[in-house]
Amino acid sequence: MSQHHDTPRRLRLGMVGGGQGAFIGGVHRIAARIDDHFELVAGAFASDAERSRAAAAELQVAEERAYPDYRAMAEAESQRPDGIDVVAIVTPNHLHFDVAKAFLEAGIHVICDKPMTTTLEDARELEELVERSGLFFGLTHNYSGYPLVRQARDMVAAGELGELRVVQVEYPQDWLSTRLEDSGVKQAEWRTDPQRSGPAGCLGDIGTHAYHLARFVTGLELESLAADMHTFVEGRVLDENVHMMLRFRGGARGMLWSSQVVPGNENGLKLRVYGSQGGLEWHQETPNRLFHSPLGEPSRILTRNGPGLGEAALAASRIPPGHPEGYLEAFAQLYTDFAEQIRAHQAGRQAAPLAANTPGVTDGVDGLAFITRALASSAAGGGWVDM
Amino acid sequence: MSQHHDTPRRLRLGMVGGGQGAFIGGVHRIAARIDDHFELVAGAFASDAERSRAAAAELQVAEERAYPDYRAMAEAESQRPDGIDVVAIVTPNHLHFDVAKAFLEAGIHVICDKPMTTTLEDARELEELVERSGLFFGLTHNYSGYPLVRQARDMVAAGELGELRVVQVEYPQDWLSTRLEDSGVKQAEWRTDPQRSGPAGCLGDIGTHAYHLARFVTGLELESLAADMHTFVEGRVLDENVHMMLRFRGGARGMLWSSQVVPGNENGLKLRVYGSQGGLEWHQETPNRLFHSPLGEPSRILTRNGPGLGEAALAASRIPPGHPEGYLEAFAQLYTDFAEQIRAHQAGRQAAPLAANTPGVTDGVDGLAFITRALASSAAGGGWVDM
Amino acid sequence: MSQHHDTPRRLRLGMVGGGQGAFIGGVHRIAARIDDHFELVAGAFASDAERSRAAAAELQVAEERAYPDYRAMAEAESQRPDGIDVVAIVTPNHLHFDVAKAFLEAGIHVICDKPMTTTLEDARELEELVERSGLFFGLTHNYSGYPLVRQARDMVAAGELGELRVVQVEYPQDWLSTRLEDSGVKQAEWRTDPQRSGPAGCLGDIGTHAYHLARFVTGLELESLAADMHTFVEGRVLDENVHMMLRFRGGARGMLWSSQVVPGNENGLKLRVYGSQGGLEWHQETPNRLFHSPLGEPSRILTRNGPGLGEAALAASRIPPGHPEGYLEAFAQLYTDFAEQIRAHQAGRQAAPLAANTPGVTDGVDGLAFITRALASSAAGGGWVDM
Amino acid sequence: MSQHHDTPRRLRLGMVGGGQGAFIGGVHRIAARIDDHFELVAGAFASDAERSRAAAAELQVAEERAYPDYRAMAEAESQRPDGIDVVAIVTPNHLHFDVAKAFLEAGIHVICDKPMTTTLEDARELEELVERSGLFFGLTHNYSGYPLVRQARDMVAAGELGELRVVQVEYPQDWLSTRLEDSGVKQAEWRTDPQRSGPAGCLGDIGTHAYHLARFVTGLELESLAADMHTFVEGRVLDENVHMMLRFRGGARGMLWSSQVVPGNENGLKLRVYGSQGGLEWHQETPNRLFHSPLGEPSRILTRNGPGLGEAALAASRIPPGHPEGYLEAFAQLYTDFAEQIRAHQAGRQAAPLAANTPGVTDGVDGLAFITRALASSAAGGGWVDM
Repeated sequence: MSQHHDTPRRLRLGMVGGGQGAFIGGVHRIAARIDDHFELVAGAFASDAERSRAAAAELQVAEERAYPDYRAMAEAESQRPDGIDVVAIVTPNHLHFDVAKAFLEAGIHVICDKPMTTTLEDARELEELVERSGLFFGLTHNYSGYPLVRQARDMVAAGELGELRVVQVEYPQDWLSTRLEDSGVKQAEWRTDPQRSGPAGCLGDIGTHAYHLARFVTGLELESLAADMHTFVEGRVLDENVHMMLRFRGGARGMLWSSQVVPGNENGLKLRVYGSQGGLEWHQETPNRLFHSPLGEPSRILTRNGPGLGEAALAASRIPPGHPEGYLEAFAQLYTDFAEQIRAHQAGRQAAPLAANTPGVTDGVDGLAFITRALASSAAGGGWVDM
Repeated sequence: MSQHHDTPRRLRLGMVGGGQGAFIGGVHRIAARIDDHFELVAGAFASDAERSRAAAAELQVAEERAYPDYRAMAEAESQRPDGIDVVAIVTPNHLHFDVAKAFLEAGIHVICDKPMTTTLEDARELEELVERSGLFFGLTHNYSGYPLVRQARDMVAAGELGELRVVQVEYPQDWLSTRLEDSGVKQAEWRTDPQRSGPAGCLGDIGTHAYHLARFVTGLELESLAADMHTFVEGRVLDENVHMMLRFRGGARGMLWSSQVVPGNENGLKLRVYGSQGGLEWHQETPNRLFHSPLGEPSRILTRNGPGLGEAALAASRIPPGHPEGYLEAFAQLYTDFAEQIRAHQAGRQAAPLAANTPGVTDGVDGLAFITRALASSAAGGGWVDM
Repeated sequence: MSQHHDTPRRLRLGMVGGGQGAFIGGVHRIAARIDDHFELVAGAFASDAERSRAAAAELQVAEERAYPDYRAMAEAESQRPDGIDVVAIVTPNHLHFDVAKAFLEAGIHVICDKPMTTTLEDARELEELVERSGLFFGLTHNYSGYPLVRQARDMVAAGELGELRVVQVEYPQDWLSTRLEDSGVKQAEWRTDPQRSGPAGCLGDIGTHAYHLARFVTGLELESLAADMHTFVEGRVLDENVHMMLRFRGGARGMLWSSQVVPGNENGLKLRVYGSQGGLEWHQETPNRLFHSPLGEPSRILTRNGPGLGEAALAASRIPPGHPEGYLEAFAQLYTDFAEQIRAHQAGRQAAPLAANTPGVTDGVDGLAFITRALASSAAGGGWVDM
Repeated sequence: MSQHHDTPRRLRLGMVGGGQGAFIGGVHRIAARIDDHFELVAGAFASDAERSRAAAAELQVAEERAYPDYRAMAEAESQRPDGIDVVAIVTPNHLHFDVAKAFLEAGIHVICDKPMTTTLEDARELEELVERSGLFFGLTHNYSGYPLVRQARDMVAAGELGELRVVQVEYPQDWLSTRLEDSGVKQAEWRTDPQRSGPAGCLGDIGTHAYHLARFVTGLELESLAADMHTFVEGRVLDENVHMMLRFRGGARGMLWSSQVVPGNENGLKLRVYGSQGGLEWHQETPNRLFHSPLGEPSRILTRNGPGLGEAALAASRIPPGHPEGYLEAFAQLYTDFAEQIRAHQAGRQAAPLAANTPGVTDGVDGLAFITRALASSAAGGGWVDM
């Protein structure tokens, strides 16, 4: 159980997006509650004033702080003495940039869902804005909140795998195997719509998660890639299946696969990392185990909060080993780390080192660069392109 | 994602126990927050006034509602216009009875950890008191909150397994393999101490969970049992390993094993149920899968929120299939169902059927009867005794 | 790959039983061929002369050595200069004793399927006969031929688990969930018939395997047991489901479950052994992995022929790790070890130590004692009986 | 248990290669014995006469039929009235072509290990020679002998997956993670030596198996590929890690990964195939299960010889479900099917359909074309090349 020896007041959280029928907004709200560092006090939950108010009522947010649009919210909240400390942006992708910009310009910290923007240019502009403002910017590449992902990262960094050779990462799903967007499922509607998702479909939605996870754990920088992206379901525009070969600086090689049309796969994010001295394997669907194969020895099963873990993994765990934690706890860990960083910012101190290593605006730029180069490779026939 | 179409105010939650070093108190608090139906507003967190106040400060509970003892709390809260709606009792076992009694007598609903009491007599007295008072009493046999446990229950009830034949349930752990109680670990101290745990060690701590799970899923009533309980670690008094054979009314047979001294087992609760038409298998450590083996057909892997599930399982799930939910979400489901029952009670209406089926005082009595008979069997050499 | 530096002639193998429709006879023949130490040259394959001849023709056994009955075979083969070195007895259980006796009295080594006899008296008589004759007697408790079972045995013997505490063994199947014996399936016919199986059904068929495996790996001796045996399918006489609690000399406790009526279980033999210093877990259905959990360390996955194994396991493996070996190779390992023992006997030398540790007549007596006591316990209501 | 109603004489088998220290020769010999259709009667087991004789003695082959070289063997055996029916070629790769040619020209059927040759030209020449001679030529892509691989093939062919979309195949190993060839391990010596292995290392050794498996199950033809091959261990010449993207005729896309330097992987061959109506997943290391995910339904676990299988899978299984078969039985299945084809050839009849579908010279040519194009792609920087 992580210890919170002194507990300052809960941070005031606002939200843009996340009304009825949304998925990720609800996840952010639970994640913000689990470790009790936030209270939701304001929101522009929908693009329609009526629906925003209805959502606010449901979420026990005061009616006066249910805003009809994000600009009004940024302005009003920045004026209130009890204004929000931070806003969570959980809209479809195409709005991330404008919303983030509005709140940053209003002097408010930002937590933003991924992909950060829909173009690399926007991502870079946001990066500059964040640097200029000095504000906190958290990007919810949530898989980096899993304790055993942090354990893997620390083991790689400590050299336990030796020199890295091969990185295999995949993220298969099946929920878009058929034209779900024709059945009124809002998630499917906007995610298959280039106007709202941006030019990348599966690539932007989950390929970026796979890419970030590989980078987060290995610390490797991508040098070049070759991408073969494909759409199978008739009438779809955006990519549904992404095949990619990767070359990292320093010589390691890798593969990335993400897909949303492969039956039998729910959220099968899986990372395997191999070096001269050992290998690691982790699956999101059974996240409380990490397989470690030291060269020439039997493989070991590290368990969350179990024996043999380092302090980063232990600090990110709430309950005893064997009692499974899951997706929401990993997401909550990001929120908890964000809280520490925001409070450190407010107090003018350094954030605790274990909480400081969360994805941010630089990862957002990196993700958009990755998307951009992958789209370029695929559009040009799938050959190699440099990053 | 479960829907909350109209959201009444959060219920005001008090807590007895759960101060520094406690395990289950923190779990209850997270569970109460996840679905946002409760706010913690009062507590007697420790038997010492100073430590209770310190815990309250840490938990953002107002100082005036940090009570030095539970009696004072019951009295004061029952008088306040904004007094707690319900108290959660998360003390060591020996206090459950007195605390529950105090709050029930003060007219306050109760959520109580298990085992409900340390004697069958106390359990029966509590049952009478609950019946007399008409108040809500929830017992946190938390494994019944897992969506796929509810799915299993519904499948058995719908006759999908045919006539039940065999029930195998086990709950092995390893955390007490050595004398952890000598290292200042509070959990180990009170759980190995008959003064605080009652006469059952492993049996009361986790054997009752296994028993309840088997009963909850199968609906079978136990007719008789033969129990062989044993203590291996020198200097221990309470049982560490429980072997049991079971005969159910109607002819089904079963086995129950719980242990706290078997290395390599973290929280390995596992249930297998077999009937004339099929079998089911569920493991707590990978709770998002349920194996269903229809007679003469390939086994199927049901997944949380995946295809083929009934409404009870779907209603207890928050996020898409493949994104793992875990122990805390299952625990939260009980709290969410408790909230519905308490609100129904307050509104004088029937609780929603899907939320009404949570463990309560009758299960607590049943658990104590089970403990009592198992102790009797083991004390008499391990022969069969009737329930 | 095990090495056979000098290869003497193949041993001449005879067989009693194993004609059309038999299961275990075919298994013995493949097992005898895999490592090439035997050639099948004679047989009384069926109780009917015509069917025995037909089987011989199919098995490329010379017509003159296809015997109408086992007595004729024992006599004739013992007279031939090229007579069989050893007979494999693969009949239904009720014939084991008479056939074994006939061949031993004819001076021929015996390989016998289990259970060795149908009564303890017969088992003891056979034991005396073997001792008196000095002949080789191998009992095909074939699971002891798995490399990782031998690894487990060696680890226990070397004290790697510390003092043994708990032994959990189970062998569930589902093939008799319905009245298969009414469909002309010969296997089901004789195995559910007390005239041919003896007084124990599931207990004799697979319960004895589970018991032998537990004994083989742990080296523990059973002190007492309590058995609850049950029959669910209407019209059956013999037990289909066996629940048992075990107390071993020295204080270890255990459970044994075997069943043939639990849908979804094919041949789910599984052994778990726990001591003060660690645990082991092995499953027959995925036999190329052995889980080892040293106290306070991450669990390890030992693989057949992989890193960290001892010489007994390595000697019993044929191909590289990751290429699965299975049931037939484990069975073949017994035959290979039997060959070494028979050749050592013929040469008047000691058998190689790694090949000498196979189940024999003493295990057969032990198995019948186990069956006898379990039947006695169950018949008396399921209470404890001493061995 | 597969039935062999009439059993003709065993086929006389010769072998080239497979002496001391070899791996695959021993595998072929066991595979040839398991179902009892062959007897080994001649061989040129080593390139040195003395060592060939020593191997023959060990293998119980008559001294006169232990040949010093394969040409002498082909000539002598073709003259004997009891000459071999078929030769198995189990030498290092560079000899396959010459040996196969010699035996085909001598009128003797051939079983050849893979890759069939070291150049595409040789492969094509062999193909012509086989066609001209009309002789049987079997190529031991042994994974196609697994029952559940055949089941998968039949399910795809029957349209159970709908239109194929994505094929993911991988074959990771770790045995060459370090310079094992410096330690006198013969396997490592020749497999890392371009003189004996040919120009492809990992690609030829196991990449071709992965490719063949994907083709065998899906029936898809490769249209183009992009390959990134790499060598990590200093001093090595041949590829150790192969990353590949695949485009199949008809629009399906795929990935192939094979590696011999990734710690923790033993023989991790794994195939996943996805179509518009479902998915399949199979792992060589646990080959007795096949996961089938019909679109929108729970995944199913098909088991070897279990419910729901087609006749091809049932015919390739020897023992009841749950008793694991493995690598040697799958290899034996090829030999058994080869025997049927050779006997059909000798009898001038059609082979039984279930036995007729084994890899042959066309697959060998296809494999070399695959190797050749992959080498070309990788040499040119990893871009796309047509097949």
